[in-house]
Amino acid sequence: MLKRLLIALSPFGVAMAVAWVPAHAQADPLASWNDGAAKARIVAFVKAATEPGGEDFVPAADRIAVFDNDGTLWSEQPMYFQLAFAIDRVNALAPKHPEWKTRQPFKAALAGDVKALAAAGEHGLIELIMATHAGNTADEFAQVVRDWAKNARHPKFNRPYTELTFRPMRELLDYLRANGFRTYIVSGGGIEFLRVLAQELYGVPPEQVIGSSVKTRYELRDGKPAIVRLPEIDFIDDKAGKPVGIHKFIGKRPVAAVGNSDGDFEMLEWTTSAPGARLGLIVHHDDATREHAYDRDSTIGKLDRGLDEAGKRGWLVVSMKNDWRTVYAPPR
Amino acid sequence: MLKRLLIALSPFGVAMAVAWVPAHAQADPLASWNDGAAKARIVAFVKAATEPGGEDFVPAADRIAVFDNDGTLWSEQPMYFQLAFAIDRVNALAPKHPEWKTRQPFKAALAGDVKALAAAGEHGLIELIMATHAGNTADEFAQVVRDWAKNARHPKFNRPYTELTFRPMRELLDYLRANGFRTYIVSGGGIEFLRVLAQELYGVPPEQVIGSSVKTRYELRDGKPAIVRLPEIDFIDDKAGKPVGIHKFIGKRPVAAVGNSDGDFEMLEWTTSAPGARLGLIVHHDDATREHAYDRDSTIGKLDRGLDEAGKRGWLVVSMKNDWRTVYAPPR
Repeated sequence: MLKRLLIALSPFGVAMAVAWVPAHAQADPLASWNDGAAKARIVAFVKAATEPGGEDFVPAADRIAVFDNDGTLWSEQPMYFQLAFAIDRVNALAPKHPEWKTRQPFKAALAGDVKALAAAGEHGLIELIMATHAGNTADEFAQVVRDWAKNARHPKFNRPYTELTFRPMRELLDYLRANGFRTYIVSGGGIEFLRVLAQELYGVPPEQVIGSSVKTRYELRDGKPAIVRLPEIDFIDDKAGKPVGIHKFIGKRPVAAVGNSDGDFEMLEWTTSAPGARLGLIVHHDDATREHAYDRDSTIGKLDRGLDEAGKRGWLVVSMKNDWRTVYAPPR
Repeated sequence: MLKRLLIALSPFGVAMAVAWVPAHAQADPLASWNDGAAKARIVAFVKAATEPGGEDFVPAADRIAVFDNDGTLWSEQPMYFQLAFAIDRVNALAPKHPEWKTRQPFKAALAGDVKALAAAGEHGLIELIMATHAGNTADEFAQVVRDWAKNARHPKFNRPYTELTFRPMRELLDYLRANGFRTYIVSGGGIEFLRVLAQELYGVPPEQVIGSSVKTRYELRDGKPAIVRLPEIDFIDDKAGKPVGIHKFIGKRPVAAVGNSDGDFEMLEWTTSAPGARLGLIVHHDDATREHAYDRDSTIGKLDRGLDEAGKRGWLVVSMKNDWRTVYAPPR
């Protein structure tokens, strides 16, 4: 347990020890986590990784933690937030595209057929966004995302999507960074979508966001250089694609991986199958009251193999219901 | 000019100001640069970008500087160092591949036909390395590079290639980092080759190296997870590919770009065509005595359009001969 020495000055200007108090009585960095095995495990990992001379010490340069986004850092029900964005965009652009009325996946988006769209997974989602925004410059697309995030609201909670990040996970990000970790997001969602939001939502800068992507091209538009989105998938950062994305962007194996679905299985496996201090963590959505309850049978965020194998692989399964004191920050 | 206050303790333990001296009399961060317009321009840029409240101030998060590698951070004549690596590898593996004797580009590599190989450019080079190392894991490939770098020597200077980095450029990297910049390498060369060397040579960690790449696949080998190199080009990080690579990996536009050939033109253009403090810098190889002299007519590192347009675009052309006090560090 971290302790902190309170210092006060005596009337004669001499420093004087007043009392030892546990630091978390002052400010617990994981205040939204209930005290219990899950929290203790996280703290023990960080302590082991950062204790100089300890056998599990990890040099600062190798303190890399990777986080899934949908269902891990923010909610993903009743649909990926980015799917809500895509549907809104299809509706906004539909007047210019009468052919969408009869062509999939646009027809499903216009009909609000979330089930069909969700079944197409993150791949289908990227294709939908790709099709609606091919030819846009990266700057134009970023502005569209920014405007959407400001105005769109979640159908169940009637709050901006951007308020539906998990407070315990934002604390975990901060806690790791305060201990010299670099925190990356490794998402099946679109890299250009997420980069617009990640700094403000999570304190994660664009260069530490990895995600699915479309190809882009450098060109001059009216004499000015621009990066232009092309109608071609570049990379799908999901399942076995996640370790590939990590290798491509970071070039090092992380020491901590945090996810919530079987789409994160290989990322967790890759991270935790090397020796030394490792943390594999799965958020289990078992809280129908405060968020949602789903796992093995869900179309979105299916968690099946991960639940079966977490025990033998030493992965920590976090119960949203039991381990989290709060889920979201209060409305602003 | 930075000044530093020298403090000494008097016999009575009282701090005493001794003298104001220019900091560079103590330790000039750009000691290998001759005093002159080029050095002054670099210092002025850094000062403008880091002066709080100044009109060209750049927040720390946006202080991103990108550097080409071949011909910019180390030499590239008489051939890209990575081409020497590729030729060595083809020769080492040739006994297992009798078919290479009659098949290009292996035949040229076995014959030491550098001219034919160089003409194929960075793309041809990546293909050669791709073909020789497809099926290797990333870890295996990294070890091959490490072993090669330890033993191979440059044909003209008879020194390890790893000693042929430019001292003034290493100082520039350090100087920028000391001023809160993050320094990225954006190379036409192979990302997995360069990442093995960049930390030790330049203080640049793997996640800040961008380069050309082959596709990889995540798989279990003997039950252990591995990243395996595939015989397929993923990305060519050259010419208009450089801004695309920067956008993909960093997601922000840099404020400083440093290169030496027309392969860096678009990177320089992209970096310097936005408002605010910007630095575009081209290293001109005009020093046949200490390094090499080449530009418009060279197969490797051709610099033609860059020389024509540097003036009107405000890019700083650095003369290796006149602006650099030393080129390489002395042999170890």
